[in-house]
Amino acid sequence: MEKILIFGHKSPDTDSICSSIVMEKIAKHYGLDAEAVRLGNINKETEYALNYADIQPTREISDVLEGQKVILVDHNEKDQSVDGREKSEIIGVIDHHRISSFETSTPLYYISKPYGCTSTLLYEIIKKENIEIDKQMAILMLSAIISDTLLLKSPTCTQNDIDAYNELEAFLGIDASQYGLEMLKAGTDLSIYSADEVINLDAKEFEANNKKIVIAQVNTADIEDVFVRKEEIEFAMEKQIADKKLDLYVFLITDIINTNSKVIALGEQKEIIEKAFNVKLDENDSALLEGVVSRKKQVAPPILEIL
Amino acid sequence: MEKILIFGHKSPDTDSICSSIVMEKIAKHYGLDAEAVRLGNINKETEYALNYADIQPTREISDVLEGQKVILVDHNEKDQSVDGREKSEIIGVIDHHRISSFETSTPLYYISKPYGCTSTLLYEIIKKENIEIDKQMAILMLSAIISDTLLLKSPTCTQNDIDAYNELEAFLGIDASQYGLEMLKAGTDLSIYSADEVINLDAKEFEANNKKIVIAQVNTADIEDVFVRKEEIEFAMEKQIADKKLDLYVFLITDIINTNSKVIALGEQKEIIEKAFNVKLDENDSALLEGVVSRKKQVAPPILEIL
Repeated sequence: MEKILIFGHKSPDTDSICSSIVMEKIAKHYGLDAEAVRLGNINKETEYALNYADIQPTREISDVLEGQKVILVDHNEKDQSVDGREKSEIIGVIDHHRISSFETSTPLYYISKPYGCTSTLLYEIIKKENIEIDKQMAILMLSAIISDTLLLKSPTCTQNDIDAYNELEAFLGIDASQYGLEMLKAGTDLSIYSADEVINLDAKEFEANNKKIVIAQVNTADIEDVFVRKEEIEFAMEKQIADKKLDLYVFLITDIINTNSKVIALGEQKEIIEKAFNVKLDENDSALLEGVVSRKKQVAPPILEIL
Repeated sequence: MEKILIFGHKSPDTDSICSSIVMEKIAKHYGLDAEAVRLGNINKETEYALNYADIQPTREISDVLEGQKVILVDHNEKDQSVDGREKSEIIGVIDHHRISSFETSTPLYYISKPYGCTSTLLYEIIKKENIEIDKQMAILMLSAIISDTLLLKSPTCTQNDIDAYNELEAFLGIDASQYGLEMLKAGTDLSIYSADEVINLDAKEFEANNKKIVIAQVNTADIEDVFVRKEEIEFAMEKQIADKKLDLYVFLITDIINTNSKVIALGEQKEIIEKAFNVKLDENDSALLEGVVSRKKQVAPPILEIL
């Protein structure tokens, strides 16, 4: 049987990596020959989780061949997915985002729920289907939930995420909030990355009304740590805008301790930020967004709405 | 709390009507204020099922108001859905078709599996969630499965559909194949309909590559019974092509006893049929498609592929 590839979005975050590995285990439980792969580098936060679980990073791929069977986790939009996706056959999607620029010519498995994290969905499937889990799977799912919900503090967090978090914590017998803070902090050391790498750590493309935008996000324990590198970051953003013909580039520096974000906006449509969040961009093309931590729930919708 | 509307596709078939009513019961089980409605007339086959279950037809709607919360069953494509759908908030989809011309600005519940029938999916959810079912719900789901799979004979039929059929038959304590044949036959009496009505009984619009097509289908116990009305049917098809600016109108007359279909194709792109099915259209713009009964699995994909 032909091998099925399972992957999350480009610039993979902890949920994309961890959910793809857990999904591989679920697929194998059903007798499918499947392999979790990834569409980009593993970030420091995810590395921390994989090390803790003693799991090797998945294989990186850049595109897919004609007729390749794939399962998408944690995304569905074309621009966030593998290059050449139109050549593949999408047999399944497990996701928790809006649906857009996604279409198939045949029916498929598509399971999406408005939860804070894909792994919460996987955990519920595992429970419902009585699939046995081990400690590795549990730490992967718990790490994904901690990452996507910022330790249950994000407005995207649902009761389902909290329940899964609590049950996985009990199963593992660890202090999840202590583990989670260590993991999140591991992801905030951006000093090792070039500005180009920083803006690509977690960047997502969106299209609406023929406008193309990127919303990138980094987590930090102190916004100033990142903001001092504003000049080189803006330079990298301008380059992306030119290369990808973007109408807007939004860069969010999210304070995981105080749950605020500083936004830097560049591009022809940068005024949209002022309307979307009722703020004034200062002379640095920047503004503080009080209480804003979720790209999916708090940042992308108002911007896409105005576009 | 605001009422949620649940509906299947335009020109509703038995699955669209029955699944919407079952979904209403599931929604109510979860404390939601929901109402199953419909986007068109109830056909004779569905009427037979509703009479047998002693259930009143649902309320017909033609469009939705701004901000209306909706749950779609048995479809997702825009052209098959309610007029003004872009104004609504889609909070859930339960479906078993390809995904196309569907997008949302926020995350939602989207449950789709490549089964023969939406009701099979609902039946599995009901079992997994331990929702109590009654005889009315069982007859609705059984009727939908019988209709969509042509009594388990369609190539779209999966083991999941067969399992659900068998369990529902056992629960009801009836002879499902006898009931099913009566129900299917009730749907084949087209003499009461005008040609215009005949081609709209089960018509679905598709778009691909900026081409707009309709594939309509009727069931019959004898193809000739319908084919003798070819002239008035073609007249009605031509009118639709002009009114809706269609590139292709495909009308399938499906023999539910011998599981074949006769196709009539009109419109600028009618030659596509010859390529898609490796047949020659005769002087009646018509051809016999041996073993073809499923629009979803056997007719739409090769046509959309060529477009």
